[in-house]
Amino acid sequence: MNDSQRVSILSEALPYIQSFSGRKIVIKYGGSVMEKDILKKAVFRDIALLASVGVRPIIVHGGGPEINNWLIKLKIKPKFERGLRVTDEKTMEIVEMVLMGRVNKQIVRGINETGATSIGLSGLDGNLIQARKLKSSTHGFVGDISKINSSILDPLIDKGYIPVISSIGSSNNGISLNINADYVAGEIAAAINAEKLILLTDTPGILKDLNNPKSLIRNLNLKQARKYIEENIISDGMKPKTECCIRAIAQGVKATHIIDGRIEHALLLEIFTDTGKGTMISA
Amino acid sequence: MNDSQRVSILSEALPYIQSFSGRKIVIKYGGSVMEKDILKKAVFRDIALLASVGVRPIIVHGGGPEINNWLIKLKIKPKFERGLRVTDEKTMEIVEMVLMGRVNKQIVRGINETGATSIGLSGLDGNLIQARKLKSSTHGFVGDISKINSSILDPLIDKGYIPVISSIGSSNNGISLNINADYVAGEIAAAINAEKLILLTDTPGILKDLNNPKSLIRNLNLKQARKYIEENIISDGMKPKTECCIRAIAQGVKATHIIDGRIEHALLLEIFTDTGKGTMISA
Amino acid sequence: MNDSQRVSILSEALPYIQSFSGRKIVIKYGGSVMEKDILKKAVFRDIALLASVGVRPIIVHGGGPEINNWLIKLKIKPKFERGLRVTDEKTMEIVEMVLMGRVNKQIVRGINETGATSIGLSGLDGNLIQARKLKSSTHGFVGDISKINSSILDPLIDKGYIPVISSIGSSNNGISLNINADYVAGEIAAAINAEKLILLTDTPGILKDLNNPKSLIRNLNLKQARKYIEENIISDGMKPKTECCIRAIAQGVKATHIIDGRIEHALLLEIFTDTGKGTMISA
Amino acid sequence: MNDSQRVSILSEALPYIQSFSGRKIVIKYGGSVMEKDILKKAVFRDIALLASVGVRPIIVHGGGPEINNWLIKLKIKPKFERGLRVTDEKTMEIVEMVLMGRVNKQIVRGINETGATSIGLSGLDGNLIQARKLKSSTHGFVGDISKINSSILDPLIDKGYIPVISSIGSSNNGISLNINADYVAGEIAAAINAEKLILLTDTPGILKDLNNPKSLIRNLNLKQARKYIEENIISDGMKPKTECCIRAIAQGVKATHIIDGRIEHALLLEIFTDTGKGTMISA
Amino acid sequence: MNDSQRVSILSEALPYIQSFSGRKIVIKYGGSVMEKDILKKAVFRDIALLASVGVRPIIVHGGGPEINNWLIKLKIKPKFERGLRVTDEKTMEIVEMVLMGRVNKQIVRGINETGATSIGLSGLDGNLIQARKLKSSTHGFVGDISKINSSILDPLIDKGYIPVISSIGSSNNGISLNINADYVAGEIAAAINAEKLILLTDTPGILKDLNNPKSLIRNLNLKQARKYIEENIISDGMKPKTECCIRAIAQGVKATHIIDGRIEHALLLEIFTDTGKGTMISA
Amino acid sequence: MNDSQRVSILSEALPYIQSFSGRKIVIKYGGSVMEKDILKKAVFRDIALLASVGVRPIIVHGGGPEINNWLIKLKIKPKFERGLRVTDEKTMEIVEMVLMGRVNKQIVRGINETGATSIGLSGLDGNLIQARKLKSSTHGFVGDISKINSSILDPLIDKGYIPVISSIGSSNNGISLNINADYVAGEIAAAINAEKLILLTDTPGILKDLNNPKSLIRNLNLKQARKYIEENIISDGMKPKTECCIRAIAQGVKATHIIDGRIEHALLLEIFTDTGKGTMISA
Repeated sequence: MNDSQRVSILSEALPYIQSFSGRKIVIKYGGSVMEKDILKKAVFRDIALLASVGVRPIIVHGGGPEINNWLIKLKIKPKFERGLRVTDEKTMEIVEMVLMGRVNKQIVRGINETGATSIGLSGLDGNLIQARKLKSSTHGFVGDISKINSSILDPLIDKGYIPVISSIGSSNNGISLNINADYVAGEIAAAINAEKLILLTDTPGILKDLNNPKSLIRNLNLKQARKYIEENIISDGMKPKTECCIRAIAQGVKATHIIDGRIEHALLLEIFTDTGKGTMISA
Repeated sequence: MNDSQRVSILSEALPYIQSFSGRKIVIKYGGSVMEKDILKKAVFRDIALLASVGVRPIIVHGGGPEINNWLIKLKIKPKFERGLRVTDEKTMEIVEMVLMGRVNKQIVRGINETGATSIGLSGLDGNLIQARKLKSSTHGFVGDISKINSSILDPLIDKGYIPVISSIGSSNNGISLNINADYVAGEIAAAINAEKLILLTDTPGILKDLNNPKSLIRNLNLKQARKYIEENIISDGMKPKTECCIRAIAQGVKATHIIDGRIEHALLLEIFTDTGKGTMISA
Repeated sequence: MNDSQRVSILSEALPYIQSFSGRKIVIKYGGSVMEKDILKKAVFRDIALLASVGVRPIIVHGGGPEINNWLIKLKIKPKFERGLRVTDEKTMEIVEMVLMGRVNKQIVRGINETGATSIGLSGLDGNLIQARKLKSSTHGFVGDISKINSSILDPLIDKGYIPVISSIGSSNNGISLNINADYVAGEIAAAINAEKLILLTDTPGILKDLNNPKSLIRNLNLKQARKYIEENIISDGMKPKTECCIRAIAQGVKATHIIDGRIEHALLLEIFTDTGKGTMISA
Repeated sequence: MNDSQRVSILSEALPYIQSFSGRKIVIKYGGSVMEKDILKKAVFRDIALLASVGVRPIIVHGGGPEINNWLIKLKIKPKFERGLRVTDEKTMEIVEMVLMGRVNKQIVRGINETGATSIGLSGLDGNLIQARKLKSSTHGFVGDISKINSSILDPLIDKGYIPVISSIGSSNNGISLNINADYVAGEIAAAINAEKLILLTDTPGILKDLNNPKSLIRNLNLKQARKYIEENIISDGMKPKTECCIRAIAQGVKATHIIDGRIEHALLLEIFTDTGKGTMISA
Repeated sequence: MNDSQRVSILSEALPYIQSFSGRKIVIKYGGSVMEKDILKKAVFRDIALLASVGVRPIIVHGGGPEINNWLIKLKIKPKFERGLRVTDEKTMEIVEMVLMGRVNKQIVRGINETGATSIGLSGLDGNLIQARKLKSSTHGFVGDISKINSSILDPLIDKGYIPVISSIGSSNNGISLNINADYVAGEIAAAINAEKLILLTDTPGILKDLNNPKSLIRNLNLKQARKYIEENIISDGMKPKTECCIRAIAQGVKATHIIDGRIEHALLLEIFTDTGKGTMISA
Repeated sequence: MNDSQRVSILSEALPYIQSFSGRKIVIKYGGSVMEKDILKKAVFRDIALLASVGVRPIIVHGGGPEINNWLIKLKIKPKFERGLRVTDEKTMEIVEMVLMGRVNKQIVRGINETGATSIGLSGLDGNLIQARKLKSSTHGFVGDISKINSSILDPLIDKGYIPVISSIGSSNNGISLNINADYVAGEIAAAINAEKLILLTDTPGILKDLNNPKSLIRNLNLKQARKYIEENIISDGMKPKTECCIRAIAQGVKATHIIDGRIEHALLLEIFTDTGKGTMISA
């Protein structure tokens, strides 16, 4: 392709750029995108591009397979119950180190290499995520969000830094709690009055029939989303993600998106083209 | 071309966007670009795109053929001497109305239609361009710049408005003077400490041999530019443009460009590709 | 008069200056004041004086006889219907050039010569006046205001610039529309929460009996004003002006004045003396 | 005089107002102006008028005859040596109360009654005037200025308050010292980079021949002023005032004026007319 | 005590400091604390310490015995009626001078000597306290507060200055009025939305039995306080103080304290220990 | 000890608090203080107290024995050469996780539990520490500081957050490097123009005779410090610490301190008592 064609395409992005200028977009970074180097680099560049055209991205991440790798290296067997990691004290030590000391910093380093500037945070920093332990006795150090204290984010966002947030919360009695990262992304989006919440996943979006990728649902409103959950059309791993979107919208986020992080430039496709990708849930 | 390819190309613009973010670029709008509707629309979109990605464009324009059209309608015969319009009082009335009341507002309207927001100014507004009459007795109300008073520009640029400036100056005794628009663009670029001055022309740039478009000079430094003028390699209409660039660079502008406005997206090609177009004169 | 007497008089202005300090006053500039040089100079000095003592004047103007002069020069016959100019495309071209390129700049230049600093604007600049075409098929490019977007005014007023606004609006589809200047003044006064709207006219104010200048009505409240219109005591040219005042007051402007611009220093007389001149309409 | 003439005169003040807008003027208030009610009221209105048109007046005062009145009431005999009050401890108690508790508050109340807003300060407040005791053993609690700490003044002046300052300084060991008010005015003018220092006195200005009021010297430059002191043409009470002006100018004050406070509106005459009154000493 | 013990104690103050950081506390300075040098020094240091750890103290004072001393020196017999000073014109002159020129400045000087920076104000300065004369014909120049105009306080407090306010108000017709200082403290606390109002007195607090210091009431809510007044348990001098606290709380002050100024560091004991001293009245 | 004595001691801290208000103090946290719970809690409270009285602490930490513990758990043998850890790729992974994911967050959590608010950072975040690999081939991922980019710190410090910084730097080619924490503390102190640099160590300070704790050197100037290094009086582990202090002072830090972190409240003793502890090196 020659330069003329390139700049023509650039030019076509104008209305998209104008409509998102200055808006906050919370991106849950997770799934394959964390593991494949080529996807990782592309997503960091996408985030940097968003920031460079005036969008204000905020990244939230969990730990994914990295945590299991390190548990195994340390001869601790990963255990799950009802989709949640059973997190005893020894496990929690690893969760903290891997999330805040390894995954978070890989993202920060990756974004910074693109020329943008990011800053790593966890729920402990500036008391960003206040949490309480789940009542369920079996999960150990796993928590629910009791309050997002977003005052640390504003001075950073205003100066153009991209916050990268690990899904670790801080309880009243000073212990760290492991929290589901989708949930963290949703609550932060609500707390900072974000325009959009985007969950990067390993699925094309919400499928009516899990075995048929062509059954992708492109748009859902709150009511439909709730109905599909009731009817078990949305189930398993997609259920908590959808609930997370519903809660975010109920608290004022304009639109939420469950998209396929395995597609290169999935973020840009969502924001800078009309078709978008995946499922959008909105009010 | 499909969406994936589109966003890939968008993504490649990242380093260019980052390197010009927040920089002021003065653009002399003139030549064919003012006459052909399709070029006009493209250049307005280009300016809007620059603004949307954080560049701060400032537009300067003259009147071109519009002035002659209206003079003829009013039965006044356009007259030129040594390349400058002979501007008697009746002519000056037309020059003012056409520049400030017609051409300026067409540009303002055109940019605003793209979704950006511009504001039309002349050298009278906020005393922006202070001028004195040329000593030459024959040219009438034609002037030289004595001072650029750029304090009106800062609050507008800071709020994201794109200034569009007519090349009319104001003399001490309260009369308006017609000033060469290239010259106005150069002096404003110097006064506001612009990163770049770009002159949109009807030539490919500076040619070593006017008859051979392949003789385009891509880069010139100050010394070379001065030498080429002395040796008459740069002459006629290109001479004042080059002198204008030389003066701007001498006053601190980082780079100046004489580019071909007849090429669609000439501005984006200059700023968002490596090759650029036309001639760059720098220190 | 000696210096002592002069400064005594200055001293008496203190309470008036204090009570208007920091207040915005919208002045519709029109009528004879636009034509007679001596009145023009006086009104520019009055505006500059207001600005120098901390009042914030905003000037709105139409085109008056200047437009007809130029139409005639270009062999276009001015046409009016029900008090409004029939504005076909060719006429509109002249209206734009004369208003924005000639009359506006004469005012700007005139104010700047007094030592104050003004800036010329039209409804296009910063999308200040959004308009829609009148439904009446016969008037052509004549419009109604749909929205005042005053965000361009604040940064200018805060820095001490005096805005001078041409009564041209911008429609959604990017065409310019000619709007009644009294109406523009009234809507801008409402949009910026002005203290006062002052209409400079060629009458002593509202007369009970048009043939008897002694029948001047000094004060009217909203209710009376509406009643006088119904009873046709206020009619013809005074009717739209009065309606304009009524609308401004209904939207929160404190007081509106219809005064005689033919009297030297009419503005100062209105603001800096107890008696005032002309008719005041207030809530 | 009718309203038209009044506003004409107002209008003539425009260039004076424009040239002093935003400038700081330090006024030493003293002499007859403190004693005669009619002069007092006029001077308060003058100060308020200056503030209302954008000038920033700062008032400095001593105690004058009030101090003697109260000393006598308390059976303390006022004593002077070489023009300076001999200030023993009991006297100093009275000086403080009369200056800071009576004269200062009378000025504050007087200015506030005009509609302006003033605030009374002494050298103790915000550590404004740091002083050291004169070495001369005989004068008691009389001091020299060692430092003006003007940081208390800026937030007040910026908010439009008129500071009224008693000439009492504070020494390192926490005792108050009586300081010559002319001297305080001069040093404050220098410290805040004032445009003008004006000393209100009971003389027409500096006279070449004390017995001949027609021998008034209208202008003096620094060199001449120093020469006249050497040659004893300037002597007695006028000598310290002149030295005070010389020091202020040497530290950057643009112009200093010794004027006749007994003339009504002396301040306005000085600032708003060409002729001025009294003697101007400038660089 | 050794250094280790000292810093341990310092360390224990942390939670108290954190909970009052940035809060405004109005302190009525009066009673013995004004007379005994050692108490005075301690209270000034306490105020400075509060300011140094981020609390924002505002001091209000009356005149106490100083006024009587000076009345007697001037052969004026102090007279009281129903607890209020009968203040004829001659008395008022002394009240003003002693309060604003002597007591106020002693406090300012005392605080400044500790290294903090204070500024003395009265109700006249910046029109801080607007008052009206009591209707009672017998008390003379004694007033009630009609309005607190606290806009002068904010710029000073924001810059870290400690305001010291004399209880003199200014009436509409420009005369000064003597106002009860407890009352001034209460109304200022309400006007600036203070966290606490603390009255320094010569009693241990509110006693159930005036003859039994062990009958100290530690806490009262609004209802109880009103009941005790009705039942005459709170009577005499304590009654107006209690009413003052009630009014302050009713207007939003969080807590009010009547404490024993005769105890060294009474302020610090109240704010930096759990037990506190004296009586707290809260909502 | 009773309350009166407590507040007396508090009161004595006033001059110390006043002299450090608003000053930045960089504290290298390390040694035993990291291991013993009681010392840890005390140091966190000390840091919170400093912040609560207006000092601006910035904490820098290394990893200490924690890193070795985790290396051993993962069967990697810690290796050192010339006092520096040999950091191969596997070791570096552990270093990063332990420093940024464990030690840093323990400090953040500890400070936040005291009621202050801290934020954890590493050299990657906001590109704070730019580093280059040591030329020595044997040390692996160990680096030198090439640039401190402190712009991330200002908005945080201004809002009252306490930065806690891990000594990990970021190289140009995007790899993390392990850096000596004393060195990081010194360079950050220099970059932010700190008042003081305090190194918490496991020694009483610099000893003339290592075997004699009574040989403590209390004060050293730059020249002496350099001489003692040359003469090998300062050697081994103390040598790099001293060099670090020398470099900080040479770049404008006012004073540096090597103190004994094993003493409870060592920080408060240094800042809030006259005697201080340990060795002070100053210009």
